[in-house]
Formats: sequence, C-alpha cells, structure tokens
Amino acid sequence: MVRVPLDPTIADRLRRDDHGLVCAVVQDDADDRVLMVAWMDDEALHRTLTTGRVTYWSRSRQEYWRKGDTSGHIQLVRGVEIDCDGDALLLRVEQVGPACHTGTRSCFDAGGVLPAVRGARERTT
Amino acid sequence: MVRVPLDPTIADRLRRDDHGLVCAVVQDDADDRVLMVAWMDDEALHRTLTTGRVTYWSRSRQEYWRKGDTSGHIQLVRGVEIDCDGDALLLRVEQVGPACHTGTRSCFDAGGVLPAVRGARERTT
Repeated sequence: MVRVPLDPTIADRLRRDDHGLVCAVVQDDADDRVLMVAWMDDEALHRTLTTGRVTYWSRSRQEYWRKGDTSGHIQLVRGVEIDCDGDALLLRVEQVGPACHTGTRSCFDAGGVLPAVRGARERTT
Repeated sequence: MVRVPLDPTIADRLRRDDHGLVCAVVQDDADDRVLMVAWMDDEALHRTLTTGRVTYWSRSRQEYWRKGDTSGHIQLVRGVEIDCDGDALLLRVEQVGPACHTGTRSCFDAGGVLPAVRGARERTT
C-alpha cells in the first residue's frame, strides 16, 4: 500500500509538543457539548481528515486508536478546525453512543464540576 | 502573604503532563463556542477556582498569565469541569472582547477550517 502522508500545507501549520502531538478537542455537532480531549500526530490527523472517522494517538497504549473500533461508540467527522498557533484542533462530530469509556456521554460528565468562584466585572464607579 | 495551595482533593485528581500541566478547554458560556485551548498548573487552577478570573500558565513565556491583564479581554469564570482521567479541564466563561490575540473571537476562527471528508455510518444491508 502506498502510504500518503498528511497534506504538507496542513503539516506545516502544526505546532507539535515534545511527543509530536497536538491536542484535539471534540465537540458534539448536534448541541455543542464538549465530549472529550485527546491527542493526534500527523498520521492520526491524516486518517481523520480523509476517512470521516476520528482516529487518535493513544499516549497510554502508544498506538493509533480509531474511536469506536472496540466499543462501537464511533465518531463521525462533521468538521475540523485548527487554532491560531497550530497546537490545537477542534473536531465537530456525530457521536454514536457515549463518548466516555466510563459510559457517560461526555468525559466531563464523568469527572464533574469543580467548586469555583463565579467571576464578576469589577466595579467602575 | 500566606500562600494557600490548590485544594488537595482536587490536586489528587489531576494527571499532569511532563511539565506539570493539564489542558484547559475554554467554552463561551453564552453560546457554547469553543474559544481557545491553554494550559494550567496547580497554582493557575487554584487562582482560577478562587478568584473568578481565568489564569493560565504560559508555556512560551514560562509565567502565569491572567487572561486580559494586558489586552483587557478578560475571562470571567462561569463553571469549571474536570474530565474522567484528570488531564483536561473545561472552563465555561463570560468572554469580554475577542478571546484570540489575533483579534478573532475564537482562536479556531483565526486558524479556520481544514478540508475533511464527512463521516457516514456504514451500510448495514
């Protein structure tokens, strides 16, 4: 098989960390809930952009991870954006089933809310 | 000044990278647009949770960075969530002015859309 690499005009825009990865934020295209954060190298991004299915690099397993291949909880690509300095991606997806391995819809539902002071604008008078 | 550290029950939940940082995804509380991605260490998270203003750790400048102190484009905390494995935070904010240093509302508006194949469910028949 001839391996086609990531489009060089896109690769040139990535600012990778020490491990060659960029951060991928995943947002549900239906209602904008942030579902999870994961990581991609050039090849994972290439597969994601060209196949319609989201593929990550698993830092814990050190292997490519096409979301849903084991769980069935696949992510279908609806759109991909890159940020101003190329170190983060925003994936808009159709999520089939829960995104989190714990069974909650979002990984942030599993972790939950931290106690935080609500910000207020400073008084100007 | 007595320095109070991050609540240990929260600190225990963080899974930090090699540089002691976790990823912070920032979402506009008004309409759910993802505005930016930045980084926090324990102290930045502590300041964010206790002051109502979002503070990051700047990897490029190696210093704390209270968003808006220079630009005026502050972020007021509306809510903070942590993910299932403690390596990502979701900040819901009231954003004053543009979030991106380029002047666009979101850093993902500045970077823009990447060409991507739209995913489709596989035929089952």
